[in-house]
Amino acid sequence: METKSIHWDGSSLHFLDQTALPGETVFRDTQDYSEVIEAIKKLRIRGAPLIGIAASYGMLLAARQFTTLGYDSFCNNMDASRAQMAASRPTAVNLFWALEQVKQVLRVQNTVDGSVNALEKLALEIHEDDRKRCNAIGTHGATLISDGDRILTHCNAGALATGGIGTALGAIFTAHDQGKNIHVYADETRPLLQGSRLTMWELQQTTIPSTLICDNTAAMTMRDKKVSLVITGADRIAANGDSVNKIGTYGLAIMAAHHGIPFYIAAPKSTIDMRVISGDEIPIEERGAEEVTTINGKRLAPEDVDVFAPAFDVTPNGLIHGIVTEDGICRAPYTESLSKLFAPT
Amino acid sequence: METKSIHWDGSSLHFLDQTALPGETVFRDTQDYSEVIEAIKKLRIRGAPLIGIAASYGMLLAARQFTTLGYDSFCNNMDASRAQMAASRPTAVNLFWALEQVKQVLRVQNTVDGSVNALEKLALEIHEDDRKRCNAIGTHGATLISDGDRILTHCNAGALATGGIGTALGAIFTAHDQGKNIHVYADETRPLLQGSRLTMWELQQTTIPSTLICDNTAAMTMRDKKVSLVITGADRIAANGDSVNKIGTYGLAIMAAHHGIPFYIAAPKSTIDMRVISGDEIPIEERGAEEVTTINGKRLAPEDVDVFAPAFDVTPNGLIHGIVTEDGICRAPYTESLSKLFAPT
Repeated sequence: METKSIHWDGSSLHFLDQTALPGETVFRDTQDYSEVIEAIKKLRIRGAPLIGIAASYGMLLAARQFTTLGYDSFCNNMDASRAQMAASRPTAVNLFWALEQVKQVLRVQNTVDGSVNALEKLALEIHEDDRKRCNAIGTHGATLISDGDRILTHCNAGALATGGIGTALGAIFTAHDQGKNIHVYADETRPLLQGSRLTMWELQQTTIPSTLICDNTAAMTMRDKKVSLVITGADRIAANGDSVNKIGTYGLAIMAAHHGIPFYIAAPKSTIDMRVISGDEIPIEERGAEEVTTINGKRLAPEDVDVFAPAFDVTPNGLIHGIVTEDGICRAPYTESLSKLFAPT
Repeated sequence: METKSIHWDGSSLHFLDQTALPGETVFRDTQDYSEVIEAIKKLRIRGAPLIGIAASYGMLLAARQFTTLGYDSFCNNMDASRAQMAASRPTAVNLFWALEQVKQVLRVQNTVDGSVNALEKLALEIHEDDRKRCNAIGTHGATLISDGDRILTHCNAGALATGGIGTALGAIFTAHDQGKNIHVYADETRPLLQGSRLTMWELQQTTIPSTLICDNTAAMTMRDKKVSLVITGADRIAANGDSVNKIGTYGLAIMAAHHGIPFYIAAPKSTIDMRVISGDEIPIEERGAEEVTTINGKRLAPEDVDVFAPAFDVTPNGLIHGIVTEDGICRAPYTESLSKLFAPT
């Protein structure tokens, strides 16, 4: 199970417009980096790893748009477009990780053509690299999954969120491929319904039995359906293991702890931000009220109500049984286990 | 703040169609008991106390429809329509409580006219009685609310759910009327959005500051907005205090416990079912998948997904700090405190 959510054909970037799912499978193609920024802002492209990949392709598009400029002007324009790209969404660190790699690659170039070629190589590498990391996360994550498990997940951490099979869903797909009988429960994930629209869509393309629930049905599902494992992705993980993920993850982790159900995070190392000591330091994006008060243009609430609409929340390390990365599963104390991941060997 | 959600004019029953809120304020009127059954099934009339009131008016309509029959036939038809009414929704016990009163009232009658008159008196009494009980619940509940409290509620337990000012919202309205500064956070309450549509609508008609959140934002709201109290209504309370309420309440109680926030239930004694020992014995209505997968006819999830859509969940007594009734606040152990409520004085 691998959905090509993004693809570079040598001159254009093709991407699946995830806001049109599940009703329509709309691919868009662009040669304009500002369309990539717009797509990230509007969540046409979403999922922390995929945002990193899209940003690197976006910077390649920018470079190709500036090739008629002199080298100094090219560099200035690249700096400006990198800043614009960085401002697209604040929480997922993979975006900044990819842009940092772009910066490093550009620093060792001294011509426009050299820069363009280096950025194309980088973007393809980041993309291919993420595919391999997803496979590795899937393999490590699948060791946590036993035959008969009933697994609850939140939002979408699948092929649509990455350049490969996904992170949390990657572990699920891998366990299924290993012949384990599992049942997946997917939170619909208000307000933008990535669970109903995207995760259920991905699961439907497999033979994995799956059931959709409203977010507020998680506690009853844990109890009545005997959920045995909860696994989600992450958008940024602090050095102490505090994990920022889609709004609702924190509550889910509390409910899992209450029921004695292990709660895992699955994410590539690019999601781990060792510069932030704890989750409190991670900026949480707030989205517009209309994402909660309207759906398809129809109002769900009275006009002019006040809305609190954070896109993410912080799950404290104490509620997390393990963080599955491409290099293995980190356990508490995370300050030690995560720093080992980045230690020079 | 009191919304007339139901009204008897002496020949017709007028009720607010709650499915049209907040977009439209549609009053329907009927002289046909089967329309009352349909309205309860379709949630045009909802909220445990209001369902009880509507059922008693519905039985009055039935009686008025059968007046041309002989007395024996009248009685048989009343029995049949009472069974139909009882089958409208399975969880809220106020329905069965009201129908039991109808049965008792009819038992001491021996004419059609006498029966009709007695049922009109009963329905008006049940309605007026609920109004008074709401006021008493509000007064007792307000003693739990302090100046500066930030209160989280779920679903709608207000004027729209009762014959008076409401239960959980009744306590909030009363505290506000007493001059206490409070801020209310309302869960939108998927799938039918009684929180966005109804609770926010009721709150907007007051000067109480209020904020709408998605259900999955409750944990973050508790932590970041320093929620100091959670209060909800209930649809049925077992003799041991286990409380069945709108799906999501159980998770909310777990999250409140995790944050050390007191969690209260507010409901009239008619919601307490002393015949059921624990929540496990209470039937939980499951609703159709389309309530989760579509909104206003537009699909939110792929076709043919499996959905688990219980309308209610059970909050175990151990997570409940108190049950606010019209006769005072019951505390653990509930088996004792609730049975005292019903003890002959």
